[in-house]
Amino acid sequence: MSERELFVTSLREFLRRNVEAISSKIDKEDFYPRELIRQLGELGFLVPLNNGLSHYDMMISLEEIAKVSGSLALIADAQGELAGEMIRLYGNREQRREFLEPISKGEMIGSFALSEPSGGSDIGSMKTTAEKRGNEWVIKGHKMWITQGLYADVFITIAKTGSSRRDLSVFIIPRGACIETRKIEVMGNRGTGTAEVIFHECKVPNNYVIGDVNNGWSMVNSVLEVGRLAISGIAIGLAEAALEEALNWAKSREAFGNKLYSYQGIRWYFAESIAKINSVRALAKEVSRKFDENSKDKGIYVSMLKLLSSNIANEIVDICLQVMGGMGYAKGSNIERIYRDVRLMRIGEGTDEVQRHIISKYVEQYGIPLLE
Amino acid sequence: MSERELFVTSLREFLRRNVEAISSKIDKEDFYPRELIRQLGELGFLVPLNNGLSHYDMMISLEEIAKVSGSLALIADAQGELAGEMIRLYGNREQRREFLEPISKGEMIGSFALSEPSGGSDIGSMKTTAEKRGNEWVIKGHKMWITQGLYADVFITIAKTGSSRRDLSVFIIPRGACIETRKIEVMGNRGTGTAEVIFHECKVPNNYVIGDVNNGWSMVNSVLEVGRLAISGIAIGLAEAALEEALNWAKSREAFGNKLYSYQGIRWYFAESIAKINSVRALAKEVSRKFDENSKDKGIYVSMLKLLSSNIANEIVDICLQVMGGMGYAKGSNIERIYRDVRLMRIGEGTDEVQRHIISKYVEQYGIPLLE
Amino acid sequence: MSERELFVTSLREFLRRNVEAISSKIDKEDFYPRELIRQLGELGFLVPLNNGLSHYDMMISLEEIAKVSGSLALIADAQGELAGEMIRLYGNREQRREFLEPISKGEMIGSFALSEPSGGSDIGSMKTTAEKRGNEWVIKGHKMWITQGLYADVFITIAKTGSSRRDLSVFIIPRGACIETRKIEVMGNRGTGTAEVIFHECKVPNNYVIGDVNNGWSMVNSVLEVGRLAISGIAIGLAEAALEEALNWAKSREAFGNKLYSYQGIRWYFAESIAKINSVRALAKEVSRKFDENSKDKGIYVSMLKLLSSNIANEIVDICLQVMGGMGYAKGSNIERIYRDVRLMRIGEGTDEVQRHIISKYVEQYGIPLLE
Amino acid sequence: MSERELFVTSLREFLRRNVEAISSKIDKEDFYPRELIRQLGELGFLVPLNNGLSHYDMMISLEEIAKVSGSLALIADAQGELAGEMIRLYGNREQRREFLEPISKGEMIGSFALSEPSGGSDIGSMKTTAEKRGNEWVIKGHKMWITQGLYADVFITIAKTGSSRRDLSVFIIPRGACIETRKIEVMGNRGTGTAEVIFHECKVPNNYVIGDVNNGWSMVNSVLEVGRLAISGIAIGLAEAALEEALNWAKSREAFGNKLYSYQGIRWYFAESIAKINSVRALAKEVSRKFDENSKDKGIYVSMLKLLSSNIANEIVDICLQVMGGMGYAKGSNIERIYRDVRLMRIGEGTDEVQRHIISKYVEQYGIPLLE
Repeated sequence: MSERELFVTSLREFLRRNVEAISSKIDKEDFYPRELIRQLGELGFLVPLNNGLSHYDMMISLEEIAKVSGSLALIADAQGELAGEMIRLYGNREQRREFLEPISKGEMIGSFALSEPSGGSDIGSMKTTAEKRGNEWVIKGHKMWITQGLYADVFITIAKTGSSRRDLSVFIIPRGACIETRKIEVMGNRGTGTAEVIFHECKVPNNYVIGDVNNGWSMVNSVLEVGRLAISGIAIGLAEAALEEALNWAKSREAFGNKLYSYQGIRWYFAESIAKINSVRALAKEVSRKFDENSKDKGIYVSMLKLLSSNIANEIVDICLQVMGGMGYAKGSNIERIYRDVRLMRIGEGTDEVQRHIISKYVEQYGIPLLE
Repeated sequence: MSERELFVTSLREFLRRNVEAISSKIDKEDFYPRELIRQLGELGFLVPLNNGLSHYDMMISLEEIAKVSGSLALIADAQGELAGEMIRLYGNREQRREFLEPISKGEMIGSFALSEPSGGSDIGSMKTTAEKRGNEWVIKGHKMWITQGLYADVFITIAKTGSSRRDLSVFIIPRGACIETRKIEVMGNRGTGTAEVIFHECKVPNNYVIGDVNNGWSMVNSVLEVGRLAISGIAIGLAEAALEEALNWAKSREAFGNKLYSYQGIRWYFAESIAKINSVRALAKEVSRKFDENSKDKGIYVSMLKLLSSNIANEIVDICLQVMGGMGYAKGSNIERIYRDVRLMRIGEGTDEVQRHIISKYVEQYGIPLLE
Repeated sequence: MSERELFVTSLREFLRRNVEAISSKIDKEDFYPRELIRQLGELGFLVPLNNGLSHYDMMISLEEIAKVSGSLALIADAQGELAGEMIRLYGNREQRREFLEPISKGEMIGSFALSEPSGGSDIGSMKTTAEKRGNEWVIKGHKMWITQGLYADVFITIAKTGSSRRDLSVFIIPRGACIETRKIEVMGNRGTGTAEVIFHECKVPNNYVIGDVNNGWSMVNSVLEVGRLAISGIAIGLAEAALEEALNWAKSREAFGNKLYSYQGIRWYFAESIAKINSVRALAKEVSRKFDENSKDKGIYVSMLKLLSSNIANEIVDICLQVMGGMGYAKGSNIERIYRDVRLMRIGEGTDEVQRHIISKYVEQYGIPLLE
Repeated sequence: MSERELFVTSLREFLRRNVEAISSKIDKEDFYPRELIRQLGELGFLVPLNNGLSHYDMMISLEEIAKVSGSLALIADAQGELAGEMIRLYGNREQRREFLEPISKGEMIGSFALSEPSGGSDIGSMKTTAEKRGNEWVIKGHKMWITQGLYADVFITIAKTGSSRRDLSVFIIPRGACIETRKIEVMGNRGTGTAEVIFHECKVPNNYVIGDVNNGWSMVNSVLEVGRLAISGIAIGLAEAALEEALNWAKSREAFGNKLYSYQGIRWYFAESIAKINSVRALAKEVSRKFDENSKDKGIYVSMLKLLSSNIANEIVDICLQVMGGMGYAKGSNIERIYRDVRLMRIGEGTDEVQRHIISKYVEQYGIPLLE
């Protein structure tokens, strides 16, 4: 067994034992699985990149988690690939020790506080500000769509620190009295504690600034790129779980005197879906390698991957629901939950439209990028 | 004002006043709007075909209701176009007086009990049986996906009465101790009281048979054809409601310094969607006329309409959710509910696959049907 | 038989007798069927709107011609719905007598000279100018993509007559020494004499101005709207011809031991295609009625129709070619020719992109247009 | 420079110098480029797998050739990946010396004679027979769609040698008086000498049998799998050439006062297209590796690749033609030719439908295949 196989096997074992049984509860009861996060952390599955694993391993781990619970995968992404990654990439030793380690172990909950009510993907029009007063920073603002915002112990928060659109900085804000959080009810990926987060003049010391002041723009973009790889993994995992369930159904269910899978129309649904999911898996491998090698062009390739994987996953899950008919529409099937979960993947961490924008802007400047 | 305009105007007025405010409650609390059904009945909106209106009027009325509440539209469909229509088309005078009139007024709740656990669309493999004992019929069986089954006062029930696949008959079964109902939780169109219905040796008198014994196959198909027209109306209404909401959003929301609607990509989404919804509206008019004229080929045309309208509606609602981004994914927007509601339209009253089957079988025998 | 049935029957008879045999020659030899145009004119099929027929009749006549020869249909469109229509709508009695009558009879060939090398659909950037010198106008300019430009006896030409983008006027320019024409080789719709037309200081008398000077912008748009209806008819006809041929093939051809049409995947291709072609036929009826009634909003509806019909026709023809496999790819099948012919329909008389622009601009101002 | 870069660079140089100028002539004049084949062979580009290159190199070389001439790429495929590959994989030393070497050098033209008039993809219903008489075989039959059949010096021919559907054997038949060839005119990939080939009792010695008698079924499938990889390379190359041309156009052409590429709708066309072409490139790498490693499951993966790459290529070329409008529809643009060429890729060496069949049959037996 290769190292990766070992890793995947033990992760799968954990998911089968500890997560499968409560996946439906997370969804139905909007249940935040605090204990599972701790366990994932203990076992080293929570911030794979901090544990010496590759980007492809990270993506695969989220794929595996998403096969069982999209919500838990989204939590792991927020914790590990957004909040955690910002500290891992740009935090100093002290910050990594104080925050990244407990986040990685699942002892501390970290949220990434970027989006605002006025526009998820339009970072430049951010209204949250941070002002320096003496040796402290005072942060005021209103964030939205913050995964596990209800439960976070610490918020990795982006705020405006200058007059230009790109003058952003990144702050570590521990939960405290200055922070108000309000639950946002969402269609899918329930149990993730998604919240509005309002900073009422939060004060943090200067050493809670991550990286350089006014250098946040590029830092945020780097973290979002990792986040897009993560979302691709979740999308792929959701699609594969749906395919498994629908295929089992089609092979066992009879209609009009034959197994569903005997009908050519149904067979072709699967053939097309499986071809497509493999094409994004292949792309994911190439893109992950670019992250491992820190290629200059990883950003546009991950935009392509995120665009395709989330769209193909939605398409596939839709087909799977269709194959299962009424059973796919009823609560109780996993497909019904996955159908609601997977829709977020075309919106979160940059919508389809934002990915197309990123790609087409690059093409304008540099021509057509092709994997060698 | 034409008669239709009057009708639509007063229906819209009713919906605005009485339904808009509780549409969200119907969805969130799985609330069955018993009182609204009575009111729709009183005002003559519940079984339009019984009130002298045309098939296009019927379709339009469901479209209008669906714009405000998909659940209420589905209830009105089950009550009026399935249960009601079976009695209207095939019931004798006595049955129409005893059942159709109170159903039409919303005083009695009627369900159409056709589908079974072993396969929604495959009527021929039905397992529910009715056996004649003296002057009575004894019905035994298990039905599934029965809209307002939880609340129905009477079940228009299809059962096997002979040995061949097509030996079906139709019975009126008033609720009684022999009937067990179990709630089915569903993704959308909540508050419709969807249920499993189990008939434990229910006894009904001979005059509760609708039409001729063993003639149920063609009767069911005729009623399903009307049901497909109804579902098309609901699908169209849901899509239009989504378009209205998303367009308002796109015209008022700013991103990257401009209104969303100023971006060509977003504009094209609407252009394509609006072209498509108009093409199915046009087809709906033609198909409705075929019903009014009782054309021989209305069945295949309504299959085409149902296939296209439900698919186009799903496509449009998906785009509208995308335009609204996070807001479309959050509970509280109508889009989020519509997205879940509209998905049923590709499954209920004959899946996409069944419609394609019907059309392609006709083409095999008669060649390509074209509207003149 | 209704009047329309009579009309269609006799047109079909003519096409079967006179056109079928040379349709392939028109394509292969790039043969301009001058004689057929005269015959169509004699029989009253060439400019239907001038013969008291409705817009739907006009569309149907092009559909019928296109079923046999897309090229001949495109010629009839250029002659009747572009050049002819400009004179019919805006010409004075004298112009109608001198030009419309012989065009209608097929005695005179008329081209519509609008597009230019710098941009087909962008009329506002036109470079052709007309300047008044005494009682004459002098026209200079370079036109492109002019159907039957090689053979036209008269060019209905649009030129700039003022400084603003919209200061256009319309001129009748008989062929003469000042006119140079150059053949443009095209992929499909061959034999239509498509040409570049260069006006080297052509002089025409003042009474060869159609309508008012500087009023051409709205005149051109009105004619293009009729042209879009015409193109929709051609697209529909091409798709139907392809469907007929592919269905015959599928019903007679064996593969893997069974007739092609016995395979569900193939059957579904046809079911989807036939549903879609009927939806655009239904839309075409509604839109044609708007033309007959001269509705204010006919322009956006015909843009929807043109967008959908040309796209759906391309999709269908592609499927039909696929069904026929190698035989569909070989010269000699009609499908191969139709595949090349139908592609133009998404470009000519306003591309897809232009139609989306027209629709989305209307939506911006007036909200969502819906057929009542 | 890596070995692959060197190889690609010198191939590109050759194509630029020797092929670019006559690519259009090959298409327009149906010109068979005999001399180019010899040159490709001399330089070692003709049968890459025989020259120690990897499967990915082979695919890339066809991609590069296809960027300049789809016809030449199809010839190289027929010569090297079909006829050549059969001998390379299964021929004995003597056969490789006598036939593979001159084929590889472009001195001998080799065709792969598999398809028949009764059905391209349905090998089992083959009608061509070979009968043993003494030490000779007598082959009778009618083959169709044979690339470079008009010009081949030798035909690698599949014939039935037993009573079961799978009793096939493979013969080397040198051109001679017993062979009649008839040109087939095709829409695209012209100049490839596509022909019907009729064997009138051709006699060949026993040592012209490749591999074992009655073992042809699996040999043919192995060669077709390589052929599908080859076709994928051609499809990708055609799409990339179209993208390059359309992007140059969009960046330089003005419409409505701005460069085409400034319009978001147009930009998104490219963003989507470029994402998709990269996903199939990534899949192609994975699949090629499976060929190099001779993985058991390479067959289904190459079916996925062939299905997706040919469809995505067609989609992209269609978009590119649309971007170029009339210029894309006119002869003289490369797009017009590519549009005709690329359509074959969904038909040749197994249609879309055949690929879906192969994939869905595998899934039935083994479940969902996923790239690790």
